[in-house]
Amino acid sequence: MSRFWSPIVQKLEPYTPGEQPKHQTFIKLNTNENPWGPSPRALEAIAAATGDALRLYPDPSASDLRAGIASSLQLTSDHIFAGNGSDEVLAHAFHAFFSGKEPILFPEITYAFYPTYCKLYSIEYQLAPLDSDFCINPSDFSGACGGVVIANPNAPTGLAMPLENIEAILKANPDVVVLVDEAYIDFGGQSAVQLVPDYDNLLVVQTFSKSRSLAGMRVGFAVGQPHLIEGLHRVKDSFNSYPLDRLSLAGALAAWEDTEWFEKTRDQIVADREKLTENLQTLGFTVLPSSTNFIFASHAHVPAERIHADLREHGILVRYFKKERINDWLRISIGTTEECTALVKVLRTML
Amino acid sequence: MSRFWSPIVQKLEPYTPGEQPKHQTFIKLNTNENPWGPSPRALEAIAAATGDALRLYPDPSASDLRAGIASSLQLTSDHIFAGNGSDEVLAHAFHAFFSGKEPILFPEITYAFYPTYCKLYSIEYQLAPLDSDFCINPSDFSGACGGVVIANPNAPTGLAMPLENIEAILKANPDVVVLVDEAYIDFGGQSAVQLVPDYDNLLVVQTFSKSRSLAGMRVGFAVGQPHLIEGLHRVKDSFNSYPLDRLSLAGALAAWEDTEWFEKTRDQIVADREKLTENLQTLGFTVLPSSTNFIFASHAHVPAERIHADLREHGILVRYFKKERINDWLRISIGTTEECTALVKVLRTML
Repeated sequence: MSRFWSPIVQKLEPYTPGEQPKHQTFIKLNTNENPWGPSPRALEAIAAATGDALRLYPDPSASDLRAGIASSLQLTSDHIFAGNGSDEVLAHAFHAFFSGKEPILFPEITYAFYPTYCKLYSIEYQLAPLDSDFCINPSDFSGACGGVVIANPNAPTGLAMPLENIEAILKANPDVVVLVDEAYIDFGGQSAVQLVPDYDNLLVVQTFSKSRSLAGMRVGFAVGQPHLIEGLHRVKDSFNSYPLDRLSLAGALAAWEDTEWFEKTRDQIVADREKLTENLQTLGFTVLPSSTNFIFASHAHVPAERIHADLREHGILVRYFKKERINDWLRISIGTTEECTALVKVLRTML
Repeated sequence: MSRFWSPIVQKLEPYTPGEQPKHQTFIKLNTNENPWGPSPRALEAIAAATGDALRLYPDPSASDLRAGIASSLQLTSDHIFAGNGSDEVLAHAFHAFFSGKEPILFPEITYAFYPTYCKLYSIEYQLAPLDSDFCINPSDFSGACGGVVIANPNAPTGLAMPLENIEAILKANPDVVVLVDEAYIDFGGQSAVQLVPDYDNLLVVQTFSKSRSLAGMRVGFAVGQPHLIEGLHRVKDSFNSYPLDRLSLAGALAAWEDTEWFEKTRDQIVADREKLTENLQTLGFTVLPSSTNFIFASHAHVPAERIHADLREHGILVRYFKKERINDWLRISIGTTEECTALVKVLRTML
């Protein structure tokens, strides 16, 4: 604690991301990265942009990337906001639409960064309990509030919510922004992007870190009606004119356009997820039906915390949250086919 | 305006960066970029890091870059904070040290982003007038306040303040943070970094966008005692765990270590600046003595706004601020030797 810190900073509870070991000797299934690597076209685009032009500022409005995303969603660029990873996009959205409002609402078990943003921007929040099977109940989001945040599919459960439930929440909250965080949408579930033209209170956030395999380049985006996108631009242009560098812009656009690589790698991850789920069930795990690139699993007899520690000893990182209600569960990212096999092999010897 | 915007967003006055023409047909002397391009070693490091590993998140704590900077400043890594350009670093510093405090103080003519940050974080501010010769008077920064921000050298004047004046301001404000923005320090002036061990209220911010020629990669950093750096990390870790992507981290470290390229290009810019200053004086301009990679100039007879427009017609972009007291001045970045010559040639025909 320092006497120079502002009152807000003194009360912050910063988010702790999953471990990033500096020397890659682990099988890393702890931060939901994509095991298949970025599109070769993205790497080519980055290489082509690496040169003298890096002395120049990037395009502050990310026009080409936004146009590329908009076009494939049958929208115009003024429906798209791009930022430094979906974390930055989410932060700006909390600032732009929730600060100075009534308490906002999100599920008790969800992405752990949401309460952190609330502290940063002095936003009050309330938690909606999950059902006994970890599902989000849309009727819990029908009271007066300053805004709603739903991760769909939810993390760390991996469960997707049907689009009709999202629509019910949108209809129940016509006067506040409903933020749908679709970081994992490409691995299952139905995107709410198709609802954007019909709901002026809907903001959908997606990322290039998972299905596009560019976690190392930090690109995320939001889709919403132009008045919401303008609100995000006002915050961004009061914070940092150029959050996306030249190579991130070039790589993300090429990755977005390489639908063949995207589909091939996504299909492989989904196939490996289904196989891993079966294998873990055989080993005595309960596995929630995942629509993401990770699974959420709990063993019938062995505590999750112990499995987590033992796997680390065996060179395999998975994510464990020491948090009520999920402290006997593990979040396991879907690695390569070989990594999934290695995990099952180690678990078989351990359990 | 949207009914969904938060009260803060409704009152924002976003910063407008200098024009970034999409097709580079201009001689671009409007955003203080470095004309000489990044260090070849930085480009090599970026190329070497472009591969499969981009699927993985970057190091959230930027350890290698911070250690590299710290080591050459004879400090430890806990004295260094790294962010997505010095704009992001400044934003976090305003949030961490000034929000919820008394009004802060900065010069009436300085980097135009400071009042924008204040609006974003609901910080009140007061402006200290410049002297008649555009100098900052340290005695204006001796009253009670919530913090002080000094750009040294100042922008857009290009004037440097002696280190003893910075020290006087530090001594006059022992209970609040004095933020010294040294975006241009490498082109002249004395860095306050050497004062960091002696002053617990000093935070110095620098950038890779100017003297390191990496504006396109978005890297800035702060130097201060560990308690201040921890305050910045608390804000960053409540906003975006990974603001610097893998290629920015790799490129910045290599650029930092390539002192030969740094010194060669900086010396050339300083030489060209002195030559351009002489040439403009011959053409009837008053030119402030610059310690930066730009000059601030006003013509005896021809209004700056007209010169700005005419230069644009001739394919040369310079920066003009329609702002009281400086609305007859132009800020002109130092380009390549050839670009400086071309500018003088065009001005000679125009004036």
